[in-house]
Amino acid sequence: MNFQEVMALAKRRGILQPAYEPYGGVAGFLDYGPVGVRLRRKITELWRKHFVLGFGALEIDSALIGPEPLFRASGHLSEFDDLLVECLECNKLYRADLLVEGEGTLDRRILADAVAGKKCESCGGKFDVPRPFNLMFSTSLGAGRGTPGYLRPETAQGIFQAFPWLLRQNRGKLPLAAAQVGRAFRNEIAPRQGPLRLREFTQLELEHFFLPGAEPEIPKRLAKMEVRLVPVNGSAGTETIADLVKEDVIGSSLVASYIACAWKFITACGVPAGKLRFRQHGKHEMAHYSSECWDGEVETSTGWVEVVGIAHRSDYDLKAHGKASSREFRAPVPGTGKKINTWLPDKGAIGQKFKSEAASVLEQLVEGAAPGVEVGVSGTTHALGREYFRRVSATEPEMIYPHVVEPSFGLDRLLYCILETTWRSEGDRGWLALPEMLSPYYMLIAPLMARDGLDEKAREIHAAAMFDGVDVFYDEKGSIGRRYARADEIGISRACTVDYQTLEDKTVTIRDRDSTEQQRVSIDSIF
Amino acid sequence: MNFQEVMALAKRRGILQPAYEPYGGVAGFLDYGPVGVRLRRKITELWRKHFVLGFGALEIDSALIGPEPLFRASGHLSEFDDLLVECLECNKLYRADLLVEGEGTLDRRILADAVAGKKCESCGGKFDVPRPFNLMFSTSLGAGRGTPGYLRPETAQGIFQAFPWLLRQNRGKLPLAAAQVGRAFRNEIAPRQGPLRLREFTQLELEHFFLPGAEPEIPKRLAKMEVRLVPVNGSAGTETIADLVKEDVIGSSLVASYIACAWKFITACGVPAGKLRFRQHGKHEMAHYSSECWDGEVETSTGWVEVVGIAHRSDYDLKAHGKASSREFRAPVPGTGKKINTWLPDKGAIGQKFKSEAASVLEQLVEGAAPGVEVGVSGTTHALGREYFRRVSATEPEMIYPHVVEPSFGLDRLLYCILETTWRSEGDRGWLALPEMLSPYYMLIAPLMARDGLDEKAREIHAAAMFDGVDVFYDEKGSIGRRYARADEIGISRACTVDYQTLEDKTVTIRDRDSTEQQRVSIDSIF
Repeated sequence: MNFQEVMALAKRRGILQPAYEPYGGVAGFLDYGPVGVRLRRKITELWRKHFVLGFGALEIDSALIGPEPLFRASGHLSEFDDLLVECLECNKLYRADLLVEGEGTLDRRILADAVAGKKCESCGGKFDVPRPFNLMFSTSLGAGRGTPGYLRPETAQGIFQAFPWLLRQNRGKLPLAAAQVGRAFRNEIAPRQGPLRLREFTQLELEHFFLPGAEPEIPKRLAKMEVRLVPVNGSAGTETIADLVKEDVIGSSLVASYIACAWKFITACGVPAGKLRFRQHGKHEMAHYSSECWDGEVETSTGWVEVVGIAHRSDYDLKAHGKASSREFRAPVPGTGKKINTWLPDKGAIGQKFKSEAASVLEQLVEGAAPGVEVGVSGTTHALGREYFRRVSATEPEMIYPHVVEPSFGLDRLLYCILETTWRSEGDRGWLALPEMLSPYYMLIAPLMARDGLDEKAREIHAAAMFDGVDVFYDEKGSIGRRYARADEIGISRACTVDYQTLEDKTVTIRDRDSTEQQRVSIDSIF
Repeated sequence: MNFQEVMALAKRRGILQPAYEPYGGVAGFLDYGPVGVRLRRKITELWRKHFVLGFGALEIDSALIGPEPLFRASGHLSEFDDLLVECLECNKLYRADLLVEGEGTLDRRILADAVAGKKCESCGGKFDVPRPFNLMFSTSLGAGRGTPGYLRPETAQGIFQAFPWLLRQNRGKLPLAAAQVGRAFRNEIAPRQGPLRLREFTQLELEHFFLPGAEPEIPKRLAKMEVRLVPVNGSAGTETIADLVKEDVIGSSLVASYIACAWKFITACGVPAGKLRFRQHGKHEMAHYSSECWDGEVETSTGWVEVVGIAHRSDYDLKAHGKASSREFRAPVPGTGKKINTWLPDKGAIGQKFKSEAASVLEQLVEGAAPGVEVGVSGTTHALGREYFRRVSATEPEMIYPHVVEPSFGLDRLLYCILETTWRSEGDRGWLALPEMLSPYYMLIAPLMARDGLDEKAREIHAAAMFDGVDVFYDEKGSIGRRYARADEIGISRACTVDYQTLEDKTVTIRDRDSTEQQRVSIDSIF
């Protein structure tokens, strides 16, 4: 299927449709329907198994609206923009990079020079000087003038701002992986192509923090995975992940781990390995925070589509938030630091001396209090001597900003690629060859005909399944062939048909979606 | 526990914290941590079982940003506001209803009169005339001046705008239930109380559409449920849902069904029935779209907290969108309408006559084409006679706007109420007595001590569980008693302890959270 055919199927079968159609549509927004919501949930569950459970990540669900200081610190306020050009004649607006051959370059000088020679595609007029246009949606918090806020352009900043809390949850230990599923927003100038370029989309993100020099090694289960790479320098080839790191094709072992995990996950979603590659970003293509980046891309009828970006963000974000907020975003380096001697109050001695006033005395002793300090007790002042203190030695470890590697999936694009690449056809028949785990329903329940008690029996099976929490799809409308065809189109992996024999011996037929083979089995064995 | 204690526990144990703390915090926004995300997911799964599977609802996931015409039609642009007053001296802003005794009245004249007699709580100054302040967050879509957009104040409008699509997915048939889980946004003037009044929150909403006069009856499984009501008129009492409808205490049978289902669901979440009630809205308290409304409220240390609103929205929304968009938002009434005779092209006859041009001829015959119509074939014009048509009779059913009943949960508030009402304490010990289904992890895995190979063995069990997709929590830090206490505080229902005997006979102890009783069992039997 090509793009138009996938979109037509998606709309017809309740997977997705452009949003706000009754109001003429708004580009860049989608509605997901009953089948689409199920597919999204199942893809997310599979992602969670591979990434959250697989890497022991802490999950977080942070706010979608963030305050201005957050995005000033992250660099999104000053860096996250497209170059916009306006026609001086007809005032039509264009994204500069779309006027120039190909997308993908972020070098502003090259773009500005290239646009200067172009003319308006609509009226032939000359262009104004290009100006940056920030891609964040802005809003205002609170009444009156309010304070500025922005819809997050990536879920990642929600993880970064919560890093101190997450580190405490992990008892101060690194490495620490944190994961988030949620909406992100980009005010694209010219969104096209349905789920491939959206203003509102869903990310499946993970941030894996570690101390520089203590980068996690590739897990055994992933080291021997073979992947297809398109590096900036050197030749493309299929090699094991471990070798690719050894040969320095991939710079970071954690980036390599996530390329392997993503390869495993994307192919487990049904995307053929032959249509998958990881392409390295050139220097001008990388985002402002990135030091190494690979895009997982799927080959579709519209070209290669990025479904995941795996980026080494170094300590860019934590350092930025640490400096902007003046809170501690660093982590201790184990085994480092110099010994220092310090005083601690001796609670026993203070208790014996001051009795019921002891708590008040202890409260007055701030950190670093030493012999000779004065405290007030019942209106009089006491100097506390040595006998009220203990001498202890402690180490103050060195604190440094952790580095982070981020695998970030776009759920909407991934779903599109799964739909297009799992589609199979044979003669008149077409079906989504989804892996069992992504089948939107456990099975189709269909009476051969909607009469003679067949429909009643089928509805009974349906109700029993739903009561047990088994998600099945009931369909009695049209010929059984048309019902099979409809179920095939949304990839339901099997169909249970209730026929006249069912009423006699409590057996049904189970039809396999891919082979169309049918087997007669007992009703009791179907769930 | 009181509110402060719940919030302290929630922050300490990775359930939730106020968002953007490093930046001084932004009122009305939260971060959910590893335990909070799990609890939210499990509550949502349980809701889905009761409401989505229980009522056969179609799920939808619609966009969070909507265009202005949508919210003009829904009434949110003109009606969804709070009355704001400004101090003429110090310019401090207040929500009018919070200055007047109690919350809950929406009558504007009463409010305006009451505020006129008040003075600024900060400087004693006089107030300006109250002005309405719209609670929607606004933004701008697209480059340049852009077009206005709003963050949805309820997920419901996403369902309403997609009604024509959903009705097609349901093959034109009513009743039709549609459900959505997602974020909604309200620019509260003075958000306080953490999860109880948020600017960004999560709704679990369902819209159940039906034709007036064909309202779905109470399902058998719910009819005998007993609930506690506080009606506007008449006495409060515990009666079966079916009787309450018979006595007209509840006006709508579908509203009654959802009150019963909500009662079942909320108590299944662990909230004691004795702390739950459904309170009817008075006329001035109801939202602009509502004709009957009941709030499910849980008694907490901060008073009664609304966790669900069950509203009869009549045909308000579909009619509004039908009129504003000039698209069809009505549904056919089965068995109605007058018979009309019409002509259909006879494909067989046209095929025989025009051979390879037949498709072109058929394309030229628009709906309503009748004998005598002229078509062009290879440059010449043919008039098609009676022999190319069939006379058929059809019925044009009457079209009317469906009515809708909406049970709408606030997930954040529900989670808060679950935390507060399931907390138990006994001496020094405190624990969340969550129902098994909401336990954030399947179990705690803990070595008795982190040495002598006990930790290795425990980690092995942990890894095996994760590999099987069983979500368990590993903890080796501190005394075993402290680890039990930490697990109790987040409601993990059981703990598996690896001790010296484990190394000899492959058994472990399983400790029950509520009774603290321990049993010795084989490792093989724990998952």
